[in-house]
Amino acid sequence: MLAALAARQRKFEVVLINQGAHEEKIQDVLDAAGALGVPVKRVASKELDAMAHGATHGGVLAVCSAKPLTGEEELLEMIEKLAAPPMLLLLEGVEDARNLGFTLRSAEGLGAFAVLIKKHVWDFDAVEVARPASGAYERMPLVKFENMGMIENLRSRGMRLFGCIAGARRTIYETDLTGGIILAIGGEKRGLSGAVRGLCDGLATIPTREGAASLPLSHAAAIVLAEASRQRGKSQ
Amino acid sequence: MLAALAARQRKFEVVLINQGAHEEKIQDVLDAAGALGVPVKRVASKELDAMAHGATHGGVLAVCSAKPLTGEEELLEMIEKLAAPPMLLLLEGVEDARNLGFTLRSAEGLGAFAVLIKKHVWDFDAVEVARPASGAYERMPLVKFENMGMIENLRSRGMRLFGCIAGARRTIYETDLTGGIILAIGGEKRGLSGAVRGLCDGLATIPTREGAASLPLSHAAAIVLAEASRQRGKSQ
Repeated sequence: MLAALAARQRKFEVVLINQGAHEEKIQDVLDAAGALGVPVKRVASKELDAMAHGATHGGVLAVCSAKPLTGEEELLEMIEKLAAPPMLLLLEGVEDARNLGFTLRSAEGLGAFAVLIKKHVWDFDAVEVARPASGAYERMPLVKFENMGMIENLRSRGMRLFGCIAGARRTIYETDLTGGIILAIGGEKRGLSGAVRGLCDGLATIPTREGAASLPLSHAAAIVLAEASRQRGKSQ
Repeated sequence: MLAALAARQRKFEVVLINQGAHEEKIQDVLDAAGALGVPVKRVASKELDAMAHGATHGGVLAVCSAKPLTGEEELLEMIEKLAAPPMLLLLEGVEDARNLGFTLRSAEGLGAFAVLIKKHVWDFDAVEVARPASGAYERMPLVKFENMGMIENLRSRGMRLFGCIAGARRTIYETDLTGGIILAIGGEKRGLSGAVRGLCDGLATIPTREGAASLPLSHAAAIVLAEASRQRGKSQ
Protein backbone atom coordinates (compact mmCIF):
# COMPACT_ATOMS: atom_id res chain seq x y z
CA MET A 1 0.00 0.00 0.00
CA LEU A 2 2.72 2.41 1.04
CA ALA A 3 4.80 1.48 -2.02
CA ALA A 4 1.72 1.94 -4.22
CA LEU A 5 1.00 5.40 -2.76
CA ALA A 6 4.64 6.47 -2.99
CA ALA A 7 5.01 5.24 -6.59
CA ARG A 8 2.14 7.57 -7.69
CA GLN A 9 1.20 5.35 -10.59
CA ARG A 10 -2.29 4.28 -9.54
CA LYS A 11 -5.25 6.63 -9.07
CA PHE A 12 -6.48 6.46 -5.49
CA GLU A 13 -10.13 7.18 -4.74
CA VAL A 14 -10.05 6.55 -1.03
CA VAL A 15 -8.05 4.76 1.65
CA LEU A 16 -10.17 2.78 4.09
CA ILE A 17 -8.88 2.12 7.59
CA ASN A 18 -10.21 -0.21 10.27
CA GLN A 19 -11.87 1.85 13.03
CA GLY A 20 -9.89 -0.07 15.64
CA ALA A 21 -6.46 0.46 14.03
CA HIS A 22 -3.79 2.08 16.19
CA GLU A 23 -2.64 5.48 14.96
CA GLU A 24 1.06 4.71 15.17
CA LYS A 25 0.70 1.59 13.02
CA ILE A 26 -0.96 3.42 10.15
CA GLN A 27 0.82 6.77 10.43
CA ASP A 28 2.95 6.13 7.34
CA VAL A 29 -0.13 5.41 5.26
CA LEU A 30 -1.97 8.46 6.65
CA ASP A 31 1.02 10.66 5.80
CA ALA A 32 1.37 9.29 2.29
CA ALA A 33 -2.36 9.59 1.59
CA GLY A 34 -2.37 13.11 2.99
CA ALA A 35 0.56 14.15 0.80
CA LEU A 36 -1.34 12.97 -2.28
CA GLY A 37 -4.67 14.46 -1.19
CA VAL A 38 -6.33 11.04 -1.03
CA PRO A 39 -9.27 10.97 1.40
CA VAL A 40 -9.04 8.55 4.32
CA LYS A 41 -12.15 6.95 5.76
CA ARG A 42 -12.58 4.94 8.96
CA VAL A 43 -14.81 1.92 8.49
CA ALA A 44 -15.89 -1.13 10.45
CA SER A 45 -13.76 -4.25 10.29
CA LYS A 46 -16.64 -6.13 8.65
CA GLU A 47 -16.82 -3.66 5.82
CA LEU A 48 -13.09 -4.04 5.13
CA ASP A 49 -13.42 -7.82 5.09
CA ALA A 50 -16.24 -7.60 2.58
CA MET A 51 -14.29 -5.25 0.30
CA ALA A 52 -11.18 -7.44 0.43
CA HIS A 53 -13.11 -10.42 -1.02
CA GLY A 54 -11.40 -12.86 1.32
CA ALA A 55 -7.87 -11.49 0.85
CA THR A 56 -5.93 -10.32 3.89
CA HIS A 57 -5.84 -6.56 4.37
CA GLY A 58 -4.13 -5.81 7.67
CA GLY A 59 -6.73 -3.19 8.56
CA VAL A 60 -5.97 -0.93 5.61
CA LEU A 61 -7.44 -1.02 2.11
CA ALA A 62 -7.34 1.34 -0.84
CA VAL A 63 -9.90 1.80 -3.60
CA CYS A 64 -7.69 2.53 -6.57
CA SER A 65 -7.11 1.90 -10.26
CA ALA A 66 -4.94 -0.98 -11.45
CA LYS A 67 -1.25 -0.28 -11.78
CA PRO A 68 -1.03 1.25 -15.27
CA LEU A 69 1.16 -0.29 -17.94
CA THR A 70 3.70 1.95 -19.63
CA GLY A 71 3.04 2.45 -23.33
CA GLU A 72 5.70 2.44 -26.01
CA GLU A 73 5.55 6.21 -26.59
CA GLU A 74 5.74 6.87 -22.88
CA LEU A 75 8.74 4.56 -22.49
CA LEU A 76 10.59 6.32 -25.32
CA GLU A 77 9.88 9.71 -23.75
CA MET A 78 11.06 8.54 -20.34
CA ILE A 79 14.27 7.17 -21.82
CA GLU A 80 15.01 10.42 -23.66
CA LYS A 81 14.88 12.33 -20.39
CA LEU A 82 17.41 10.08 -18.65
CA ALA A 83 20.91 11.36 -17.99
CA ALA A 84 22.45 8.04 -19.07
CA PRO A 85 21.16 5.34 -21.42
CA PRO A 86 19.33 2.71 -19.38
CA MET A 87 19.27 -1.04 -18.99
CA LEU A 88 15.96 -2.72 -19.85
CA LEU A 89 14.91 -6.30 -19.22
CA LEU A 90 12.83 -8.20 -21.76
CA LEU A 91 11.15 -11.42 -20.61
CA GLU A 92 9.62 -14.12 -22.78
CA GLY A 93 7.95 -17.28 -21.61
CA VAL A 94 7.51 -16.47 -17.92
CA GLU A 95 5.44 -19.31 -16.54
CA ASP A 96 4.21 -18.14 -13.22
CA ALA A 97 3.19 -15.03 -11.39
CA ARG A 98 5.45 -15.53 -8.39
CA ASN A 99 8.59 -15.93 -10.44
CA LEU A 100 7.67 -12.81 -12.38
CA GLY A 101 7.23 -10.94 -9.10
CA PHE A 102 10.62 -12.10 -7.79
CA THR A 103 12.19 -11.12 -11.10
CA LEU A 104 10.72 -7.60 -10.96
CA ARG A 105 12.16 -7.23 -7.49
CA SER A 106 15.65 -8.25 -8.60
CA ALA A 107 15.36 -6.15 -11.75
CA GLU A 108 14.73 -3.06 -9.65
CA GLY A 109 17.46 -3.87 -7.15
CA LEU A 110 20.00 -4.50 -9.88
CA GLY A 111 19.25 -1.29 -11.73
CA ALA A 112 16.91 -2.13 -14.61
CA PHE A 113 14.93 0.91 -15.71
CA ALA A 114 11.88 -0.93 -17.07
CA VAL A 115 10.73 -4.47 -17.81
CA LEU A 116 9.26 -5.45 -21.19
CA ILE A 117 6.97 -8.45 -21.06
CA LYS A 118 5.23 -10.48 -23.74
CA LYS A 119 1.52 -10.08 -24.03
CA HIS A 120 0.28 -13.37 -22.60
CA VAL A 121 1.98 -12.76 -19.29
CA TRP A 122 -0.56 -10.11 -18.49
CA ASP A 123 -3.13 -12.76 -17.75
CA PHE A 124 -1.42 -13.35 -14.40
CA ASP A 125 -3.21 -12.34 -11.23
CA ALA A 126 -1.67 -8.95 -10.39
CA VAL A 127 -1.81 -9.64 -6.66
CA GLU A 128 0.24 -12.81 -7.14
CA VAL A 129 2.86 -10.83 -9.05
CA ALA A 130 2.89 -7.88 -6.67
CA ARG A 131 3.40 -9.81 -3.43
CA PRO A 132 6.84 -11.35 -4.11
CA ALA A 133 7.88 -8.17 -5.94
CA SER A 134 7.81 -6.36 -2.61
CA GLY A 135 7.03 -2.84 -3.91
CA ALA A 136 8.98 -3.17 -7.15
CA TYR A 137 5.72 -4.00 -8.95
CA GLU A 138 4.44 -0.53 -8.06
CA ARG A 139 7.62 1.36 -8.91
CA MET A 140 8.97 -0.42 -11.98
CA PRO A 141 7.66 0.71 -15.39
CA LEU A 142 6.12 -2.40 -16.97
CA VAL A 143 5.77 -2.43 -20.72
CA LYS A 144 3.60 -4.87 -22.64
CA PHE A 145 5.26 -5.68 -25.89
CA GLU A 146 3.22 -7.28 -28.62
CA ASN A 147 5.39 -7.06 -31.71
CA MET A 148 8.94 -6.27 -32.70
CA GLY A 149 8.21 -2.66 -33.64
CA MET A 150 9.03 -1.43 -30.16
CA ILE A 151 12.35 -3.25 -30.13
CA GLU A 152 13.21 -1.85 -33.54
CA ASN A 153 12.37 1.64 -32.32
CA LEU A 154 14.59 1.22 -29.28
CA ARG A 155 17.42 -0.12 -31.41
CA SER A 156 17.12 2.77 -33.86
CA ARG A 157 17.72 5.04 -30.88
CA GLY A 158 21.00 3.36 -30.10
CA MET A 159 19.92 0.69 -27.63
CA ARG A 160 21.59 -2.70 -28.16
CA LEU A 161 19.67 -5.95 -27.73
CA PHE A 162 21.38 -8.96 -26.15
CA GLY A 163 19.82 -12.39 -26.00
CA CYS A 164 20.76 -14.65 -23.12
CA ILE A 165 20.93 -18.13 -24.56
CA ALA A 166 22.37 -21.45 -23.36
CA GLY A 167 25.27 -22.48 -25.56
CA ALA A 168 26.02 -19.08 -27.09
CA ARG A 169 29.71 -18.73 -28.00
CA ARG A 170 30.37 -15.69 -25.86
CA THR A 171 29.74 -15.57 -22.14
CA ILE A 172 28.01 -12.63 -20.46
CA TYR A 173 31.43 -11.80 -18.97
CA GLU A 174 32.93 -11.40 -22.44
CA THR A 175 30.07 -9.17 -23.60
CA ASP A 176 30.03 -5.41 -23.16
CA LEU A 177 26.82 -4.72 -21.26
CA THR A 178 27.37 -1.01 -20.64
CA GLY A 179 25.43 1.79 -22.33
CA GLY A 180 21.85 1.50 -23.52
CA ILE A 181 20.94 -2.19 -23.51
CA ILE A 182 17.97 -4.52 -23.58
CA LEU A 183 18.67 -7.88 -21.96
CA ALA A 184 16.35 -10.56 -23.36
CA ILE A 185 15.74 -13.77 -21.43
CA GLY A 186 13.66 -16.63 -22.80
CA GLY A 187 11.54 -19.22 -21.04
CA GLU A 188 13.00 -22.47 -19.76
CA LYS A 189 11.11 -24.61 -22.24
CA ARG A 190 11.41 -22.78 -25.53
CA GLY A 191 14.13 -20.21 -24.94
CA LEU A 192 14.00 -16.92 -26.82
CA SER A 193 11.67 -16.65 -29.79
CA GLY A 194 13.13 -16.49 -33.27
CA ALA A 195 11.66 -13.01 -33.70
CA VAL A 196 13.65 -11.64 -30.76
CA ARG A 197 16.80 -13.58 -31.65
CA GLY A 198 16.63 -12.19 -35.15
CA LEU A 199 17.00 -8.65 -33.84
CA CYS A 200 19.76 -9.35 -31.32
CA ASP A 201 23.03 -7.42 -31.53
CA GLY A 202 24.66 -10.29 -29.70
CA LEU A 203 23.99 -13.54 -27.88
CA ALA A 204 25.58 -14.38 -24.57
CA THR A 205 25.55 -17.35 -22.25
CA ILE A 206 25.92 -17.88 -18.53
CA PRO A 207 28.56 -20.61 -18.20
CA THR A 208 27.14 -23.69 -16.47
CA ARG A 209 28.35 -27.16 -15.64
CA GLU A 210 27.96 -29.78 -18.35
CA GLY A 211 25.09 -32.17 -17.77
CA ALA A 212 23.25 -29.82 -15.42
CA ALA A 213 19.71 -28.64 -16.14
CA SER A 214 19.23 -25.15 -17.59
CA LEU A 215 19.10 -22.30 -15.08
CA PRO A 216 15.64 -21.21 -13.94
CA LEU A 217 14.51 -18.16 -15.97
CA SER A 218 14.34 -15.81 -12.99
CA HIS A 219 17.81 -16.86 -11.82
CA ALA A 220 19.27 -16.37 -15.28
CA ALA A 221 17.72 -12.89 -15.33
CA ALA A 222 19.18 -12.08 -11.91
CA ILE A 223 22.66 -13.25 -12.92
CA VAL A 224 22.74 -11.30 -16.20
CA LEU A 225 21.35 -8.16 -14.54
CA ALA A 226 23.97 -8.43 -11.79
CA GLU A 227 26.79 -8.79 -14.32
CA ALA A 228 25.51 -5.85 -16.37
CA SER A 229 25.18 -3.81 -13.18
CA ARG A 230 28.77 -4.69 -12.24
CA GLN A 231 30.09 -3.61 -15.64
CA ARG A 232 28.03 -0.43 -15.62
CA GLY A 233 29.23 0.49 -12.15
CA LYS A 234 32.83 0.15 -13.28
CA SER A 235 32.34 2.19 -16.45
CA GLN A 236 30.98 5.23 -14.63
CA MET B 1 12.85 -40.80 -12.61
CA LEU B 2 15.73 -41.00 -15.06
CA ALA B 3 17.74 -38.50 -12.99
CA ALA B 4 16.96 -40.48 -9.83
CA LEU B 5 18.11 -43.75 -11.41
CA ALA B 6 21.25 -42.17 -12.89
CA ALA B 7 22.18 -40.46 -9.61
CA ARG B 8 22.27 -43.87 -7.82
CA GLN B 9 21.46 -42.35 -4.46
CA ARG B 10 18.08 -43.95 -3.80
CA LYS B 11 17.48 -47.69 -3.38
CA PHE B 12 15.07 -48.92 -6.05
CA GLU B 13 12.87 -51.95 -5.34
CA VAL B 14 10.99 -51.99 -8.60
CA VAL B 15 10.04 -49.78 -11.54
CA LEU B 16 6.38 -50.05 -12.53
CA ILE B 17 5.36 -49.28 -16.10
CA ASN B 18 1.92 -48.83 -17.58
CA GLN B 19 1.01 -51.87 -19.71
CA GLY B 20 -0.01 -49.57 -22.54
CA ALA B 21 3.21 -47.51 -22.58
CA HIS B 22 5.07 -47.35 -25.90
CA GLU B 23 8.50 -48.96 -25.81
CA GLU B 24 10.30 -46.03 -27.39
CA LYS B 25 8.96 -43.58 -24.82
CA ILE B 26 10.25 -45.57 -21.87
CA GLN B 27 13.44 -46.98 -23.39
CA ASP B 28 15.68 -44.62 -21.39
CA VAL B 29 14.07 -45.72 -18.14
CA LEU B 30 14.26 -49.41 -19.13
CA ASP B 31 17.96 -49.00 -19.95
CA ALA B 32 18.76 -47.20 -16.71
CA ALA B 33 16.82 -49.72 -14.61
CA GLY B 34 18.51 -52.59 -16.45
CA ALA B 35 21.97 -51.14 -15.84
CA LEU B 36 21.25 -51.02 -12.10
CA GLY B 37 19.61 -54.44 -11.98
CA VAL B 38 16.28 -52.96 -10.87
CA PRO B 39 13.34 -55.19 -11.83
CA VAL B 40 10.72 -53.67 -14.15
CA LYS B 41 7.09 -54.72 -13.91
CA ARG B 42 4.20 -54.00 -16.28
CA VAL B 43 1.04 -53.08 -14.44
CA ALA B 44 -2.44 -51.80 -15.26
CA SER B 45 -2.99 -48.06 -15.48
CA LYS B 46 -5.38 -48.26 -12.53
CA GLU B 47 -2.74 -49.77 -10.30
CA LEU B 48 -0.29 -46.97 -11.17
CA ASP B 49 -2.91 -44.33 -10.38
CA ALA B 50 -3.56 -45.91 -7.01
CA MET B 51 0.13 -46.05 -6.14
CA ALA B 52 0.71 -42.43 -7.18
CA HIS B 53 -1.85 -41.20 -4.62
CA GLY B 54 -3.27 -38.66 -7.01
CA ALA B 55 0.07 -37.32 -8.26
CA THR B 56 0.82 -37.46 -11.98
CA HIS B 57 3.10 -40.30 -13.03
CA GLY B 58 3.30 -40.28 -16.82
CA GLY B 59 2.95 -44.04 -16.98
CA VAL B 60 6.11 -44.79 -15.00
CA LEU B 61 6.52 -45.11 -11.26
CA ALA B 62 9.32 -46.37 -9.04
CA VAL B 63 9.11 -47.91 -5.60
CA CYS B 64 12.24 -46.58 -3.94
CA SER B 65 13.74 -45.15 -0.76
CA ALA B 66 13.78 -41.42 -0.10
CA LYS B 67 16.76 -39.52 -1.46
CA PRO B 68 19.32 -39.98 1.34
CA LEU B 69 20.89 -36.98 3.07
CA THR B 70 24.64 -36.75 3.14
CA GLY B 71 26.09 -36.96 6.66
CA GLU B 72 28.91 -34.77 7.94
CA GLU B 73 31.49 -37.59 7.90
CA GLU B 74 30.48 -38.58 4.41
CA LEU B 75 30.75 -34.98 3.19
CA LEU B 76 34.25 -34.64 4.67
CA GLU B 77 35.33 -37.88 3.01
CA MET B 78 33.92 -36.83 -0.34
CA ILE B 79 35.71 -33.48 -0.13
CA GLU B 80 39.05 -35.12 0.67
CA LYS B 81 38.84 -37.17 -2.50
CA LEU B 82 38.28 -34.15 -4.75
CA ALA B 83 41.08 -32.96 -7.00
CA ALA B 84 40.38 -29.31 -6.15
CA PRO B 85 38.81 -27.74 -3.05
CA PRO B 86 35.08 -27.30 -3.70
CA MET B 87 32.45 -24.58 -3.42
CA LEU B 88 29.61 -25.33 -1.00
CA LEU B 89 26.36 -23.43 -0.54
CA LEU B 90 24.88 -22.94 2.92
CA LEU B 91 21.24 -21.80 3.10
CA GLU B 92 19.44 -20.41 6.14
CA GLY B 93 15.82 -19.30 6.30
CA VAL B 94 14.51 -20.80 3.06
CA GLU B 95 10.79 -20.24 3.13
CA ASP B 96 9.38 -22.45 0.47
CA ALA B 97 9.97 -25.72 -1.24
CA ARG B 98 9.83 -24.39 -4.79
CA ASN B 99 12.46 -21.73 -4.20
CA LEU B 100 14.67 -24.34 -2.59
CA GLY B 101 14.23 -26.55 -5.65
CA PHE B 102 15.12 -23.71 -8.04
CA THR B 103 18.14 -22.90 -5.89
CA LEU B 104 19.41 -26.50 -5.98
CA ARG B 105 19.11 -26.41 -9.76
CA SER B 106 21.15 -23.21 -10.03
CA ALA B 107 23.64 -24.45 -7.44
CA GLU B 108 24.35 -27.52 -9.55
CA GLY B 109 24.54 -25.58 -12.81
CA LEU B 110 26.91 -23.01 -11.31
CA GLY B 111 29.26 -25.60 -9.87
CA ALA B 112 28.43 -25.99 -6.17
CA PHE B 113 29.55 -29.37 -4.87
CA ALA B 114 26.98 -29.74 -2.08
CA VAL B 115 24.28 -27.72 -0.35
CA LEU B 116 24.11 -27.37 3.43
CA ILE B 117 20.66 -26.63 4.76
CA LYS B 118 19.35 -25.78 8.23
CA LYS B 119 17.34 -28.42 9.96
CA HIS B 120 13.82 -26.97 9.74
CA VAL B 121 13.93 -26.89 5.95
CA TRP B 122 13.66 -30.66 5.89
CA ASP B 123 10.00 -30.42 6.71
CA PHE B 124 9.34 -29.44 3.10
CA ASP B 125 7.53 -31.86 0.83
CA ALA B 126 10.35 -33.55 -1.11
CA VAL B 127 8.25 -33.73 -4.28
CA GLU B 128 7.74 -29.95 -4.19
CA VAL B 129 11.49 -29.44 -3.89
CA ALA B 130 12.41 -32.02 -6.52
CA ARG B 131 10.15 -30.79 -9.31
CA PRO B 132 11.64 -27.30 -9.88
CA ALA B 133 15.12 -28.71 -9.19
CA SER B 134 14.85 -30.67 -12.45
CA GLY B 135 17.16 -33.57 -11.53
CA ALA B 136 19.55 -31.54 -9.38
CA TYR B 137 17.68 -32.73 -6.28
CA GLU B 138 18.71 -36.29 -7.12
CA ARG B 139 22.32 -35.53 -8.00
CA MET B 140 23.34 -32.83 -5.51
CA PRO B 141 24.62 -33.96 -2.08
CA LEU B 142 22.30 -32.37 0.48
CA VAL B 143 23.61 -31.97 3.99
CA LYS B 144 21.44 -31.21 7.00
CA PHE B 145 23.36 -29.01 9.34
CA GLU B 146 22.16 -28.67 12.88
CA ASN B 147 24.98 -26.96 14.70
CA MET B 148 28.18 -25.08 13.99
CA GLY B 149 30.43 -28.11 14.56
CA MET B 150 30.30 -29.06 10.91
CA ILE B 151 31.25 -25.57 9.78
CA GLU B 152 34.13 -25.50 12.26
CA ASN B 153 35.32 -28.86 10.93
CA LEU B 154 35.20 -27.62 7.37
CA ARG B 155 37.04 -24.44 8.31
CA SER B 156 39.72 -26.38 10.17
CA ARG B 157 40.34 -28.19 6.88
CA GLY B 158 41.03 -24.94 5.09
CA MET B 159 37.57 -24.06 3.77
CA ARG B 160 36.71 -20.37 4.10
CA LEU B 161 33.19 -19.24 5.03
CA PHE B 162 31.69 -16.14 3.39
CA GLY B 163 28.41 -14.60 4.48
CA CYS B 164 26.36 -12.79 1.87
CA ILE B 165 24.84 -9.82 3.65
CA ALA B 166 23.13 -6.61 2.55
CA GLY B 167 25.24 -3.61 3.47
CA ALA B 168 28.56 -5.43 3.96
CA ARG B 169 31.53 -3.17 3.17
CA ARG B 170 33.02 -5.36 0.49
CA THR B 171 31.14 -6.47 -2.58
CA ILE B 172 31.21 -10.05 -3.85
CA TYR B 173 33.32 -8.70 -6.74
CA GLU B 174 35.98 -7.48 -4.34
CA THR B 175 36.08 -10.79 -2.46
CA ASP B 176 38.29 -13.71 -3.46
CA LEU B 177 35.88 -16.60 -3.93
CA THR B 178 38.37 -19.11 -5.31
CA GLY B 179 39.64 -22.18 -3.44
CA GLY B 180 37.64 -24.08 -0.84
CA ILE B 181 34.68 -21.91 0.12
CA ILE B 182 31.30 -22.07 1.81
CA LEU B 183 28.90 -19.38 0.61
CA ALA B 184 26.28 -18.64 3.27
CA ILE B 185 23.00 -16.96 2.32
CA GLY B 186 20.41 -15.93 4.87
CA GLY B 187 16.65 -15.63 4.62
CA GLU B 188 14.97 -12.46 3.38
CA LYS B 189 13.42 -11.68 6.74
CA ARG B 190 16.16 -12.32 9.27
CA GLY B 191 19.31 -12.58 7.17
CA LEU B 192 22.11 -14.83 8.37
CA SER B 193 22.04 -16.06 11.96
CA GLY B 194 24.53 -14.66 14.44
CA ALA B 195 26.01 -18.14 14.86
CA VAL B 196 26.93 -18.36 11.18
CA ARG B 197 28.08 -14.73 10.98
CA GLY B 198 30.33 -15.30 13.95
CA LEU B 199 32.30 -17.94 12.05
CA CYS B 200 32.57 -16.04 8.76
CA ASP B 201 35.99 -15.34 7.27
CA GLY B 202 34.44 -12.47 5.43
CA LEU B 203 31.15 -10.75 4.62
CA ALA B 204 30.24 -9.65 1.12
CA THR B 205 27.34 -7.82 -0.45
CA ILE B 206 25.68 -7.80 -3.85
CA PRO B 207 25.48 -4.11 -4.78
CA THR B 208 21.87 -3.00 -5.24
CA ARG B 209 20.05 0.25 -5.93
CA GLU B 210 19.25 2.38 -2.90
CA GLY B 211 15.62 2.24 -1.84
CA ALA B 212 14.97 -1.09 -3.55
CA ALA B 213 13.77 -4.14 -1.64
CA SER B 214 16.31 -6.82 -0.73
CA LEU B 215 17.02 -9.44 -3.38
CA PRO B 216 15.04 -12.68 -3.13
CA LEU B 217 17.12 -15.34 -1.35
CA SER B 218 17.27 -17.70 -4.31
CA HIS B 219 18.33 -14.87 -6.66
CA ALA B 220 21.03 -13.73 -4.24
CA ALA B 221 22.30 -17.32 -4.11
CA ALA B 222 22.34 -17.55 -7.92
CA ILE B 223 24.24 -14.27 -8.27
CA VAL B 224 26.92 -15.14 -5.68
CA LEU B 225 27.36 -18.64 -7.10
CA ALA B 226 27.72 -17.20 -10.62
CA GLU B 227 30.35 -14.70 -9.46
CA ALA B 228 32.28 -17.39 -7.58
CA SER B 229 32.04 -19.64 -10.62
CA ARG B 230 33.39 -16.83 -12.82
CA GLN B 231 36.35 -16.23 -10.50
CA ARG B 232 37.07 -19.96 -10.18
CA GLY B 233 37.00 -20.43 -13.95
CA LYS B 234 39.58 -17.66 -14.36
CA SER B 235 41.88 -18.97 -11.64
CA GLN B 236 42.17 -22.43 -13.20
